[in-house]
Amino acid sequence: MYALYYTPGAASLVVHWLLLELDQPHELRAVDIAAREHKDASYLALNPNGVVPTLLVDGQPRYEAAALAMLLADRHGDGAFAPAPADPQRAEYLQWMFNLTATLQAPLRLWWYPGDLQCDDEAVRRGARARFEAACERLDAHLGAHGPYLLGERLSAADFYLTMLMRWSRNLPRPAHDRPHLGALARRMKARPSFAELYRREGLEEWA
Amino acid sequence: MYALYYTPGAASLVVHWLLLELDQPHELRAVDIAAREHKDASYLALNPNGVVPTLLVDGQPRYEAAALAMLLADRHGDGAFAPAPADPQRAEYLQWMFNLTATLQAPLRLWWYPGDLQCDDEAVRRGARARFEAACERLDAHLGAHGPYLLGERLSAADFYLTMLMRWSRNLPRPAHDRPHLGALARRMKARPSFAELYRREGLEEWA
Repeated sequence: MYALYYTPGAASLVVHWLLLELDQPHELRAVDIAAREHKDASYLALNPNGVVPTLLVDGQPRYEAAALAMLLADRHGDGAFAPAPADPQRAEYLQWMFNLTATLQAPLRLWWYPGDLQCDDEAVRRGARARFEAACERLDAHLGAHGPYLLGERLSAADFYLTMLMRWSRNLPRPAHDRPHLGALARRMKARPSFAELYRREGLEEWA
Repeated sequence: MYALYYTPGAASLVVHWLLLELDQPHELRAVDIAAREHKDASYLALNPNGVVPTLLVDGQPRYEAAALAMLLADRHGDGAFAPAPADPQRAEYLQWMFNLTATLQAPLRLWWYPGDLQCDDEAVRRGARARFEAACERLDAHLGAHGPYLLGERLSAADFYLTMLMRWSRNLPRPAHDRPHLGALARRMKARPSFAELYRREGLEEWA
């Protein structure tokens, strides 16, 4: 039994989505970011980074959304969402998980929280957006040549993670999914019944 | 047989170090960053991100240093450097790999390349340094309570990755290893015979 500390639409979304897809019993515990509950001492004791998600795994608090997505995909579903360690596609799978963290999530974080750097917010956003868009172009080219999923014909946790990051870009001047192959992937992922259920449970409406 | 595209001291270092530790036959292929070889069409065909490392795995080019470190640790050494997927420590191991990418490597990248954001370099560095130092404090507290390694008594690929990132911080006003538990980990990792061999092969001297 897992317990997920989540905020609707935050990085917890990919973990929540995989819990649903993998049919894993779990309890949801809402963290009210507007009320700064993620900076309360009780939450920081679970996750010293003060961000969502945190997942209780075997009773222990664990964090980092991409790590939790990988953990669930390795543990459950008989490899439906992750090539096993001995599988030739494992290297590619690991590559995309870290590539999404470094090249999409990092600039998106700067775009959402430019105040972390003590200089002009619009300048930070321009720089973050340039990095983000360059990464989107590379991903779109990859999907065009080797898609429809990041691992070709094989769906993996990396596609769920990428879809969450595309959702985060919905208010950027040019969202990730405003490109042919990324857009096709987004439509395909959003058509999964689990996506509607996820939206219902998190009370989300944007980008439906 | 692996082939590693590397530049001395760059992100390829952790991959090179694990190849040595795991006694895996490999060929080294130097990429001259000063000559911008990492932006040559021939290199971009291997790695569209235009960064080192790239590792040829079963003849295919793969990238992202942390992903390659995880791949090698899962494939070789009978779990000496990575808890197996079914191991209770797997969740913690994955957490640290992604946490280091998001909370140490991302701000270090900004500190080294502030020009990526089109605003005052010193302001970017101040912001990046604040994020980096906060992450170091959290890691030092974790190691103090649960060390000496990130997984307690158990060495893993995450410690090699962390050591590389500490090395990158050597010229910051306050390097990562200028803290008791991070410093102890750095000394312990640098005392490994493989570290001297790595330095010899890459021709490195700083932070020896």
